Amino acid sequence: MTTAVNDLLEAHPAPAAEVDRQALAACIEECMACAQACTACGDACLAEHEVETLRRCIRTNADCADLCETAGRVLSRQTGFDVGVAGVALRACAAACSVCAEECERHASMHTHCRLCGERCRSCEAACRRLLDSLADG
Amino acid sequence: MTTAVNDLLEAHPAPAAEVDRQALAACIEECMACAQACTACGDACLAEHEVETLRRCIRTNADCADLCETAGRVLSRQTGFDVGVAGVALRACAAACSVCAEECERHASMHTHCRLCGERCRSCEAACRRLLDSLADG
Amino acid sequence: MTTAVNDLLEAHPAPAAEVDRQALAACIEECMACAQACTACGDACLAEHEVETLRRCIRTNADCADLCETAGRVLSRQTGFDVGVAGVALRACAAACSVCAEECERHASMHTHCRLCGERCRSCEAACRRLLDSLADG
Amino acid sequence: MTTAVNDLLEAHPAPAAEVDRQALAACIEECMACAQACTACGDACLAEHEVETLRRCIRTNADCADLCETAGRVLSRQTGFDVGVAGVALRACAAACSVCAEECERHASMHTHCRLCGERCRSCEAACRRLLDSLADG
Repeated sequence: MTTAVNDLLEAHPAPAAEVDRQALAACIEECMACAQACTACGDACLAEHEVETLRRCIRTNADCADLCETAGRVLSRQTGFDVGVAGVALRACAAACSVCAEECERHASMHTHCRLCGERCRSCEAACRRLLDSLADG
Repeated sequence: MTTAVNDLLEAHPAPAAEVDRQALAACIEECMACAQACTACGDACLAEHEVETLRRCIRTNADCADLCETAGRVLSRQTGFDVGVAGVALRACAAACSVCAEECERHASMHTHCRLCGERCRSCEAACRRLLDSLADG
Repeated sequence: MTTAVNDLLEAHPAPAAEVDRQALAACIEECMACAQACTACGDACLAEHEVETLRRCIRTNADCADLCETAGRVLSRQTGFDVGVAGVALRACAAACSVCAEECERHASMHTHCRLCGERCRSCEAACRRLLDSLADG
Repeated sequence: MTTAVNDLLEAHPAPAAEVDRQALAACIEECMACAQACTACGDACLAEHEVETLRRCIRTNADCADLCETAGRVLSRQTGFDVGVAGVALRACAAACSVCAEECERHASMHTHCRLCGERCRSCEAACRRLLDSLADG
């Protein structure tokens, strides 16, 4: 999908000068993929036999899905781009990804969905931090 | 991304029996991609010189982004799957995509973002209708 | 909050002619309150001792929260108002509320949060149907 | 609505010990009301005669609506409460409210919706900061 995300960013009549477009497109895609993975993992946890051991995982998946989705929306907008708002959205997303990854990793050997979701969260966290770094340098 | 979406659906301990998993994964991905395209297109419209001619496009993009995102979330859940709720979410998404595609297509020759977004909406609408058909057959 | 919602609708420079503003404001508020109740009830269910009996309730709460929130957003927009899109968003919301109310009512005698949430869902469903009726008459 | 929000928080079987429930309920309600105000104000701006002067206001309204809504969701969950995640969600929300209030205030004398929305943003920002302070003290 990166191509599609990138093509739309490129078609903007006044792209945000403060951001590296490749890093932006990559981060948007990571946010969307991570939001979906968290929704799916939380739902799969809910159906597991020992659901009572997965309460925290279900909850952190829900938070992470919400914060990733919102970060993906904020970053998809380039008009009147505000580095401060983009920054807090990225920091919130990265923090939720870190907490969710840690929780998913506890269950990764038992549940494939937790392993896949934990990997997604780590990858999204890294993309958020890369974009944050490039904003700070800009 | 379809592989990632599909892998997570497959890792569910009690997958929804009522749905074809390939059609489901494809539809989830279309919903996510369309939501992102609509957010980006609405934002690009907002920065266009003649923004006053794009009011309806900005609005319909916002609705379509919201309804696609919600459909993508509802479909990402397989626990306690309810064909009725999935159906109304899909119908709402398909209707918003149809209205948004029609509006974007009016501006497609002027604005690349409207052309790209219109194509995404048509593609998402088709995926929703295919999944609706498969639910009705099931 | 109805006053606040209504004041903002009234301040719109070109309000949607197709809708009764009082019914609209009431429905927006019901959607927001129901979305919050469903998020809180699903989370409370997750912490209950016999969480394995509340799987379907948690799932239907999640869907209902998403569909209520989206309906509240779509209805909060009056520019380029589209009766068709408003209608499908309302129908999806009403259907999710009906399913969620039915599920919550099964647990209402055991769990206060399910009783409160079930009442919210019934109230939101009714507000959606009233607004749908007024759109059809308009 | 505060009573309804509070009643649901109180019905939780294992409420978050780290937070003051009254401050939490007030903040959740502010987040929801602010999200709605921002969606309505952005939409009203879009219909204004001189929409080209309101581009930044429309954009910042969209970001603020998303971040408020997400903060309201995260705060509505008490199971496996994570002070760190709640904190970043609150900080992101407060920052978006501050930027949006400043922008709305520029147009407050011209547009009632901007005046009302700016007031909502200031009120939500204050509620987020109060809750952040109480989390830091806890």
